[in-house]
Amino acid sequence: MSLHPPATAVRAAVERALAEDLEPLGDLTSALVPEGAWARGAIAARAPGVVAGTRAAATAFALVDPTVELTWLLDDGRAVAPGDVVARVEGPLASVLTAERTALNFLCHLSGVATLTRRFVEAAGAGGRARIWDTRKTTPGLRALEKAAVRAGGGANHRGNLSEWVLLKDNHLAGVGIGEAVAAARRRWPGRTVEVEADRLDQVRQAVAAGADLVLLDNMTPDEVRRCVEERGPAPRPLFEASGGIDLASVADYAATGVDHISVGALTASAPALDLGLDLEAVAGEEGRR
Amino acid sequence: MSLHPPATAVRAAVERALAEDLEPLGDLTSALVPEGAWARGAIAARAPGVVAGTRAAATAFALVDPTVELTWLLDDGRAVAPGDVVARVEGPLASVLTAERTALNFLCHLSGVATLTRRFVEAAGAGGRARIWDTRKTTPGLRALEKAAVRAGGGANHRGNLSEWVLLKDNHLAGVGIGEAVAAARRRWPGRTVEVEADRLDQVRQAVAAGADLVLLDNMTPDEVRRCVEERGPAPRPLFEASGGIDLASVADYAATGVDHISVGALTASAPALDLGLDLEAVAGEEGRR
Amino acid sequence: MSLHPPATAVRAAVERALAEDLEPLGDLTSALVPEGAWARGAIAARAPGVVAGTRAAATAFALVDPTVELTWLLDDGRAVAPGDVVARVEGPLASVLTAERTALNFLCHLSGVATLTRRFVEAAGAGGRARIWDTRKTTPGLRALEKAAVRAGGGANHRGNLSEWVLLKDNHLAGVGIGEAVAAARRRWPGRTVEVEADRLDQVRQAVAAGADLVLLDNMTPDEVRRCVEERGPAPRPLFEASGGIDLASVADYAATGVDHISVGALTASAPALDLGLDLEAVAGEEGRR
Amino acid sequence: MSLHPPATAVRAAVERALAEDLEPLGDLTSALVPEGAWARGAIAARAPGVVAGTRAAATAFALVDPTVELTWLLDDGRAVAPGDVVARVEGPLASVLTAERTALNFLCHLSGVATLTRRFVEAAGAGGRARIWDTRKTTPGLRALEKAAVRAGGGANHRGNLSEWVLLKDNHLAGVGIGEAVAAARRRWPGRTVEVEADRLDQVRQAVAAGADLVLLDNMTPDEVRRCVEERGPAPRPLFEASGGIDLASVADYAATGVDHISVGALTASAPALDLGLDLEAVAGEEGRR
Amino acid sequence: MSLHPPATAVRAAVERALAEDLEPLGDLTSALVPEGAWARGAIAARAPGVVAGTRAAATAFALVDPTVELTWLLDDGRAVAPGDVVARVEGPLASVLTAERTALNFLCHLSGVATLTRRFVEAAGAGGRARIWDTRKTTPGLRALEKAAVRAGGGANHRGNLSEWVLLKDNHLAGVGIGEAVAAARRRWPGRTVEVEADRLDQVRQAVAAGADLVLLDNMTPDEVRRCVEERGPAPRPLFEASGGIDLASVADYAATGVDHISVGALTASAPALDLGLDLEAVAGEEGRR
Amino acid sequence: MSLHPPATAVRAAVERALAEDLEPLGDLTSALVPEGAWARGAIAARAPGVVAGTRAAATAFALVDPTVELTWLLDDGRAVAPGDVVARVEGPLASVLTAERTALNFLCHLSGVATLTRRFVEAAGAGGRARIWDTRKTTPGLRALEKAAVRAGGGANHRGNLSEWVLLKDNHLAGVGIGEAVAAARRRWPGRTVEVEADRLDQVRQAVAAGADLVLLDNMTPDEVRRCVEERGPAPRPLFEASGGIDLASVADYAATGVDHISVGALTASAPALDLGLDLEAVAGEEGRR
Repeated sequence: MSLHPPATAVRAAVERALAEDLEPLGDLTSALVPEGAWARGAIAARAPGVVAGTRAAATAFALVDPTVELTWLLDDGRAVAPGDVVARVEGPLASVLTAERTALNFLCHLSGVATLTRRFVEAAGAGGRARIWDTRKTTPGLRALEKAAVRAGGGANHRGNLSEWVLLKDNHLAGVGIGEAVAAARRRWPGRTVEVEADRLDQVRQAVAAGADLVLLDNMTPDEVRRCVEERGPAPRPLFEASGGIDLASVADYAATGVDHISVGALTASAPALDLGLDLEAVAGEEGRR
Repeated sequence: MSLHPPATAVRAAVERALAEDLEPLGDLTSALVPEGAWARGAIAARAPGVVAGTRAAATAFALVDPTVELTWLLDDGRAVAPGDVVARVEGPLASVLTAERTALNFLCHLSGVATLTRRFVEAAGAGGRARIWDTRKTTPGLRALEKAAVRAGGGANHRGNLSEWVLLKDNHLAGVGIGEAVAAARRRWPGRTVEVEADRLDQVRQAVAAGADLVLLDNMTPDEVRRCVEERGPAPRPLFEASGGIDLASVADYAATGVDHISVGALTASAPALDLGLDLEAVAGEEGRR
Repeated sequence: MSLHPPATAVRAAVERALAEDLEPLGDLTSALVPEGAWARGAIAARAPGVVAGTRAAATAFALVDPTVELTWLLDDGRAVAPGDVVARVEGPLASVLTAERTALNFLCHLSGVATLTRRFVEAAGAGGRARIWDTRKTTPGLRALEKAAVRAGGGANHRGNLSEWVLLKDNHLAGVGIGEAVAAARRRWPGRTVEVEADRLDQVRQAVAAGADLVLLDNMTPDEVRRCVEERGPAPRPLFEASGGIDLASVADYAATGVDHISVGALTASAPALDLGLDLEAVAGEEGRR
Repeated sequence: MSLHPPATAVRAAVERALAEDLEPLGDLTSALVPEGAWARGAIAARAPGVVAGTRAAATAFALVDPTVELTWLLDDGRAVAPGDVVARVEGPLASVLTAERTALNFLCHLSGVATLTRRFVEAAGAGGRARIWDTRKTTPGLRALEKAAVRAGGGANHRGNLSEWVLLKDNHLAGVGIGEAVAAARRRWPGRTVEVEADRLDQVRQAVAAGADLVLLDNMTPDEVRRCVEERGPAPRPLFEASGGIDLASVADYAATGVDHISVGALTASAPALDLGLDLEAVAGEEGRR
Repeated sequence: MSLHPPATAVRAAVERALAEDLEPLGDLTSALVPEGAWARGAIAARAPGVVAGTRAAATAFALVDPTVELTWLLDDGRAVAPGDVVARVEGPLASVLTAERTALNFLCHLSGVATLTRRFVEAAGAGGRARIWDTRKTTPGLRALEKAAVRAGGGANHRGNLSEWVLLKDNHLAGVGIGEAVAAARRRWPGRTVEVEADRLDQVRQAVAAGADLVLLDNMTPDEVRRCVEERGPAPRPLFEASGGIDLASVADYAATGVDHISVGALTASAPALDLGLDLEAVAGEEGRR
Repeated sequence: MSLHPPATAVRAAVERALAEDLEPLGDLTSALVPEGAWARGAIAARAPGVVAGTRAAATAFALVDPTVELTWLLDDGRAVAPGDVVARVEGPLASVLTAERTALNFLCHLSGVATLTRRFVEAAGAGGRARIWDTRKTTPGLRALEKAAVRAGGGANHRGNLSEWVLLKDNHLAGVGIGEAVAAARRRWPGRTVEVEADRLDQVRQAVAAGADLVLLDNMTPDEVRRCVEERGPAPRPLFEASGGIDLASVADYAATGVDHISVGALTASAPALDLGLDLEAVAGEEGRR
């Protein structure tokens, strides 16, 4: 359940995507498909990865033609190897071809996000117990879907948007001290997470003293991160987040520092699409329909 | 002009992106910024690349607060080196911080598309005169913006959507011959481009004989592409497009075949974001305002 | 039928409400509900009142998860006592919990409007035969739903919006006499209701003489209203409407004047929500499903 | 700044409200206003309260006619006494009359929310230092605007929606223990607030032991609340929230218990509109324009 | 004022129209216009008629490029002869060409509606004093704009939609008598216009006796209409409406019967576009800009 | 399939149309229909023509009430004579009456477009083999539906919008020669149709020499068109399009010239609605339901 985005967000995104691919004239080429031609096929992985976006893909076929039948064999979050079938598809050939690209655009992009997330999760796991977090560097209009894909990949969601929690960066302070700013945040937005960005150890100390829930260690080396985490001592709080330029090569080193979270903008901003395709058997005429 | 997407598409995309980043409570953190604090800064490149998405970024600031002033130094399509300033920003600190991420998400993603396109264009240029084409593998909801970014990068746009031209693939034929299918396409959709996908040389011959405008050579090696192109002889038509798994390492080889177009799904489906950031000087109090 | 708002208005309002409650990450808490957990329960009144908003509530559950089953025992317009069951609910526990608040927000707010309307209707009935009318003081975005709730409560709808009938207030006249203004209204908008606001008896006389369909008696005492109504004599027209600060304590006195309608802005602008709740029995595991 | 809702949410809500009040024919009555007639006036309070919704009201006038000039004397959050002028209005009479009701519907409803909030804040202040919190019992479609109005009234915002923080109620547990559920929440949604609803003292103890950030004391008497708060001892965490049927008469007693937050659904679900009106001087002819 | 549709309706319609003409790639051809080329021109009538839709046309240019300047010489409702200039246009050539067709589509269609209306108004004027009414046979999505165009042509608006007044046709009665149905309408929808469709004289008598506000005489000859109108005698009410197959050839005969209104579905359902065009002088280079 | 517009475009258009006909109060008159009354009837042609818009009409009934059953006897593109039944309708009387006008507005307008198209197609067929093309002179908001109706009538679609192909008119050239402009179009927009407007024979020669795909012969007499077509000689390219003021009387003469396409703005801009109506048998009470 938590691996899927809200149903209203999925439907709105798919309606937009179909409109941009079909209007004004519809699918010129499918219009040439012989009347009654039938399609039977499978959406299959062509590269190893993790599936996400099945709800959006299903919605794309349903909005083009509710008589197309999809049978999902694998849900969001499942790992796939090349050749693994994610879903079986059957229906009027013209409809299947019209919906194919829109469905795959969601599936490949979101599976790409899930796959890159899984790679970071596994690389971090080699170093320690740090969780991989996404960021707000999402593709405009797809925030809900991409954050769900991160969860499908085994990552966790940093704040959903600016409305969810307080994250005080240097610029927000504008001359105000960290302690004073955290106190102001508690007064104005009681009950919610207050995070403080720290570039240096003395800022970390101020953030801890101020009672921040989270400390964002920005652009530090693994060694610097380790020193900051040690500053916390045995206390369960605050949690520490390492961020800034961490890649698959370095994530294990950061994880090994004992930091609680490692946030990676690339999960949503730079994930290559996962290669999935629709392999079809087209049958002319009504006899294609069993 | 042609480097920018339609104004209505930009505005709709930015409204959606701001809503998903700000609702329901708005920017919790900017609410803590001292009254009257002022910001002055610059959007600058942190990596080499090509700029795209300036209209969307400008719209993000304008919709959050029309009093924020942006001065654009570089337009879509311009190459940047690390440190190059794309735009100067000045306005109320809280507003600038609220709009920052949405503006950058557009700018970084679309500049990433433009940058990857430029790399393919340059790599192909080493091999020949082939043009780089995008595909319909775009991020759902951003078709218009990503296709404009491809143009900014020096690429050209394959069909905008299923409604623009006919592209007959194997499945569309469903037992009908290529010649018959092209003739049907001409009857049904007179005046527009008819393209035929060919996997083998005999199909290329049929497509040429059928009078196709474009022949898509799918998943062929450079040598196979070269043989197909030679099949055309000195005639100006049809144009040939090579497609399928062509990357930066192989694009020059394909370009050297004399093929007219090389289409690359990765331009829009797998472009890493270009790193651009907003460097701010925050000034507390009204004196920040000159 | 007439007690329900248009289906398109209901769907649009519910989609907006779900989006604002669920995006971007969805229901964090329901995501923790054990897989397969099942819910069985009832929406029941916790205070006496009149039901409205059942279509919106049903739509909320359906858009979150079409497998949730609702059985409505009471339709819009039915009176309820504490403990009365309005609908039975059964479905996946996570889905039911996710939709619960949105469904109840519609049901409680609109039932609150219907309940307050019924109280005014009953209080007015003690004094005479005057009908209770709503106004345009509705909650922005919910005009159609609130006006339907007024009908469910036994009230009637004053004009739906500015586009429905002419209501000449002092400011509209801007120096033009009532007779002249009514004639202009008849010329410009023939066939529709023309109402004139009157603050004094001489204005009432002018409105009657001008052939107005309705006369709005604004901010008058019951005695003043009675005198105005007597001015009409035995003629069936115009109808008189009393308006302005009429509350549950005074509405019977106004009704006793023989006035035809009493309009009350509070029906939609100040109705407290009716307390309805969802009482659930949650069953872990698939065995919860009969 | 934090007192206002996001600009995109305001604009969308006002566009919907104008459409529902004006379409299809527009304002029949304003169409009868003499050409060139001019209006000068003021939006003034007719009852004591707290102002909210000024951005929405301003947007309503601007979208009807950008030449109408508004001068705001009082911003969201300011207390008003009867007669206090909130804004001065000047412009074409027909436009002012067309926008009036939509602007006032926002202003009166949202000021009503702010006013009721302020009354709770003041009543609670007599008892202790507890903060007044809103709930998710908001009017569908107006979540962002109503939550901003609560802030304008001096209250604070409980979670913005289901996507913001975890709130484990009895039904979510479905047989799972509190400790286990909190741990699951921390794993799935690290970094964010986890709140636990408790009906009895033993549940409070479990929630404290589980390390919840917030404990919701549901439907308890002040004495019961006091006992629960004492359970926490001198520790800064968790924070306690009292909820359920708390009204203006009892809120001071709850505040006196030392509880940190008192949440009140009525703030947004049952706030009567604040009476504000537009007093106009209409001047026929262009000479009205200074 | 009353000649224009609501501003929100205009903007929404124009945004949709631009999106459908420009997405996804924008205006391919204008992209080829030389940088800095400037346009100066005029929108002029090429056939005699009545202007409508100026607000929509202006909005089309403004949304494409706010720097395009339009100077309107003639407002909605003004008669034009071939060659008459409606507006002067000046701005970047590419922008003017991009917006041209969308602006003209509104202007030509809505002026066509206004022109046909004017022709009916003038033809009816030869016969009597009957007003010309539109119907609900409008183009889907353009109700507000077409009804405004009818007003611009000198016609009046029959009910705006199903929500505005009651019109009892034979099917609605479903066995119930006219008197009973009118009484039910008065109870359910007090204060608003109640119209009854009559096919025969005895139904007219029943409608008059029932106190209907309007009687719709459906598909009658002028003689039949005259007999029905005489039935009313000297009373001011009800008003009579003739409807059904009335064209420019017969409208004067109907008007001569003394009927109050003549409704014509063709005004909005079958009005040919009025021929208006944009005559441009294009100037290459910045020197085009004065 | 190709005769229908994209499903998403249909649904969006019908939702808008229902909203504008029903909000805010719903169908006042249907609300008076006796509970349980049932309707059985048929949508039938009252004039000869060609059907289009069946998908939109079906969607209108379905969105008002999914229990209304429609059985379509004739699909888009079928010719009808007066009395021919297009669909049978059965369902709750109130729902059928509420949806009737919206469904018919689509059906009559779009069938009008298809019918006029068919008349042009037949008239042209008398002269030669030229295809009838629509233009971009469509009703704003209905581009996709009207272009589908043209196909239903046997016409073909000129470019769907400005984004589909290049059409160089005199103004676009702005001093640049035709050859240079076509070459620029090929560079910027490779692979797609490039059309050149020609007013004179020398421009036709330039367009042919430049390798245009299409030449638009604007406002020429049939003799002038014939001379231009002869200019092409036996080559298959470019195709020639005649345009400008061609009506039913002259279209055969143009077709006889050997021109390939004749485009007619009137197909979508000036098609009178086709008269189709819903003939109902209303049955009071549940016994109406078989």
